[in-house]
Amino acid sequence: MTDPAGAAEPDARAFDRWWSDLEPVGRAGSGGYRRYAWTAEDLTLREWFTATASGIGLDVVSDRAGNLWAWWGDPDADGPGVVVGSHLDSVPGGGAFDGPLGVVASLVAVDTLRRNGFQPAHPVGVACFGDEEGARFGIACAGSRLLTGALDPDRARALRDGDGTTMAEAMTAAGHDPRQLGRDPHALARVAAFVELHIEQGRGLVHRDAAVGIGSGIWPHGRWRFDLAGRADHAGTTRLVDRFDPMLDLAALITGARAAAERHDAVATVGKVCVEPNGVNAIPSSVTAWLDARGPVEDDVRAVVADLTSVHGEPLLESWTPRTAFDPTLTQRLVHVLEEAHHDVPVLDTGAGHDAGVLAQAGVPSSMLYVRNPTGISHSPEEHAERDDCLSGVRALTRVVERLTS
Amino acid sequence: MTDPAGAAEPDARAFDRWWSDLEPVGRAGSGGYRRYAWTAEDLTLREWFTATASGIGLDVVSDRAGNLWAWWGDPDADGPGVVVGSHLDSVPGGGAFDGPLGVVASLVAVDTLRRNGFQPAHPVGVACFGDEEGARFGIACAGSRLLTGALDPDRARALRDGDGTTMAEAMTAAGHDPRQLGRDPHALARVAAFVELHIEQGRGLVHRDAAVGIGSGIWPHGRWRFDLAGRADHAGTTRLVDRFDPMLDLAALITGARAAAERHDAVATVGKVCVEPNGVNAIPSSVTAWLDARGPVEDDVRAVVADLTSVHGEPLLESWTPRTAFDPTLTQRLVHVLEEAHHDVPVLDTGAGHDAGVLAQAGVPSSMLYVRNPTGISHSPEEHAERDDCLSGVRALTRVVERLTS
Repeated sequence: MTDPAGAAEPDARAFDRWWSDLEPVGRAGSGGYRRYAWTAEDLTLREWFTATASGIGLDVVSDRAGNLWAWWGDPDADGPGVVVGSHLDSVPGGGAFDGPLGVVASLVAVDTLRRNGFQPAHPVGVACFGDEEGARFGIACAGSRLLTGALDPDRARALRDGDGTTMAEAMTAAGHDPRQLGRDPHALARVAAFVELHIEQGRGLVHRDAAVGIGSGIWPHGRWRFDLAGRADHAGTTRLVDRFDPMLDLAALITGARAAAERHDAVATVGKVCVEPNGVNAIPSSVTAWLDARGPVEDDVRAVVADLTSVHGEPLLESWTPRTAFDPTLTQRLVHVLEEAHHDVPVLDTGAGHDAGVLAQAGVPSSMLYVRNPTGISHSPEEHAERDDCLSGVRALTRVVERLTS
Repeated sequence: MTDPAGAAEPDARAFDRWWSDLEPVGRAGSGGYRRYAWTAEDLTLREWFTATASGIGLDVVSDRAGNLWAWWGDPDADGPGVVVGSHLDSVPGGGAFDGPLGVVASLVAVDTLRRNGFQPAHPVGVACFGDEEGARFGIACAGSRLLTGALDPDRARALRDGDGTTMAEAMTAAGHDPRQLGRDPHALARVAAFVELHIEQGRGLVHRDAAVGIGSGIWPHGRWRFDLAGRADHAGTTRLVDRFDPMLDLAALITGARAAAERHDAVATVGKVCVEPNGVNAIPSSVTAWLDARGPVEDDVRAVVADLTSVHGEPLLESWTPRTAFDPTLTQRLVHVLEEAHHDVPVLDTGAGHDAGVLAQAGVPSSMLYVRNPTGISHSPEEHAERDDCLSGVRALTRVVERLTS
């Protein structure tokens, strides 16, 4: 079956089936997902990806970082290919769409083209990146950053989760040898272009009344850790004037971050806090708080952090990603391909980081497709995209793969 | 050996030995203690108490709530006795003295009197109360409150710790049948008077240049839980104006609690906070914060909470203890006994709750002895009392037991 512009119509039943496969994995009572890297849930997701991709005839390989690549054709023999995909891990209490929509859409697109007898002129790959959210070890896009060399393997191996387990230990327990970590030029050389499909995490497409959009770039963004020191003491017997209570510093940091973001036309969030010892009747000995700050302009984001540093001291920089512009030639190609099918195709910036951004920074021609999110809500059980819009996304992706490999 | 006033001199070597026994139990890398109720550490402490008390010839029994009582003489046959003691559990990251000092001092006092051939006219007991800090299930003095009926057994059994384990499940796992819980008039009837020895959690004795003091009463105090609702959302893509971020409410609660306490001459502490989902790049869906508020005057403490309620809505009251005055006759008796030995004996109020307060409220004549704390710091690894002051406390307690049972 083909659409009016002559492209293959995606298999909606395959989409529904694979979507249902993923639905129960790592789902909490709240309806949110907890799919952290190198956990049992993550292993289940990896096994599902490998089995499903193999089931439609693709060859699945892992790179040194543990990212999975399902190939149609042989990029080592026939030259680099066009890769689509996303990730399957989640933030704590995350939604069903952030990540999995791109992986499922990519598998459906490739399966549809194969079943329709399409003969690509170049290999086609589906990538399933590991540890995109950084929810467990604190570094977002850890899988793609390890692949490109943006994350040092020694640093990665030593990262600890909330229970004190290192990434090296977690990988070992999950059957991936952490000694392999390091830039993987061989895996990168197989990728001629990467297109990541993702649910939009905002309402840009709602405002433009479009089901699908194309990514132009990613805001600069970073994560900083503030260690607020205090002195543990008894909540009932210590006079207010004698206290050295870091919770008051936390309050100032939270309100200061919001005010600085407003001042500098950026966004800033204190979303994670750890209190020691976290007892009802104990003045805390310390509070650790993490700041996430982003915005359209790098200097503005840095100004937010500078304002907070002047009050709370120098934080620990956990990650910094400058502004990322997606490959202009590839982005224009996507616009052209989708306009052929009479789609309205807004081109959008985003405040969210993605593996496509990491690959773009490593010189791999990359871009993104977004699927409309009616509420704009993301990283929440309320994250949602209508099925029709998801299928529009799959249709667009299918067309993109077809045209880029014709 | 006797002191100048004719009382037995306590056995410092027994004190040192038993103190050393307890030192490693539940000690964390930070030097702080984590001895939560009905955990493996708690079981170790209970076994130590039973073995040590039995070893000096006392008969150890448990009441319905799981508090332990070591008797010299038979209170069922010979009428109610004089009881001394304290508790062995701790807050998270707590000090070595809060609780254990009173238990060890009581065992040394009784052992000293027995070895010196003292013949008490009434039975003497050493009490080791369970779950005094409420660190695991959120209710302070849970053991003594269950004993007196101040804590409903159905409510207690259903309380959950941070991992979702109920108190009933934790008790069962530790070998105590939770179906037994409920007011225990038989155990209470054995107690003619209760004197709890405890490290001071403030610097009242430092200011008065005294090693030991006597308690007059306990400030009214309570615990309230504020559930601050928000909407989970992506930290990078949600405009500031579209956010419903409960972390901002937390900041207002923390600063509001401090300001209200200053206004109303009380103390107020936000020492425990739980953020959901607690991810660096996720605006929280909810924040739960606990308020501890106390002060010399009940209406002032209530005014602190009323001020916060007007901003944040009605919190959940987790516990409330009105002002507790210790038994005036018993307190005067203690003053008299210690003055006999030419001790300077300040009489002090405290902002800390104690099992002696719970028993006092149930009509058991109760009072306390405090041992000097040079820094006043408590609920912290820095909590400390000099060995000489500890031994002065043991000496005072020995004299009290001797005089009250002569």
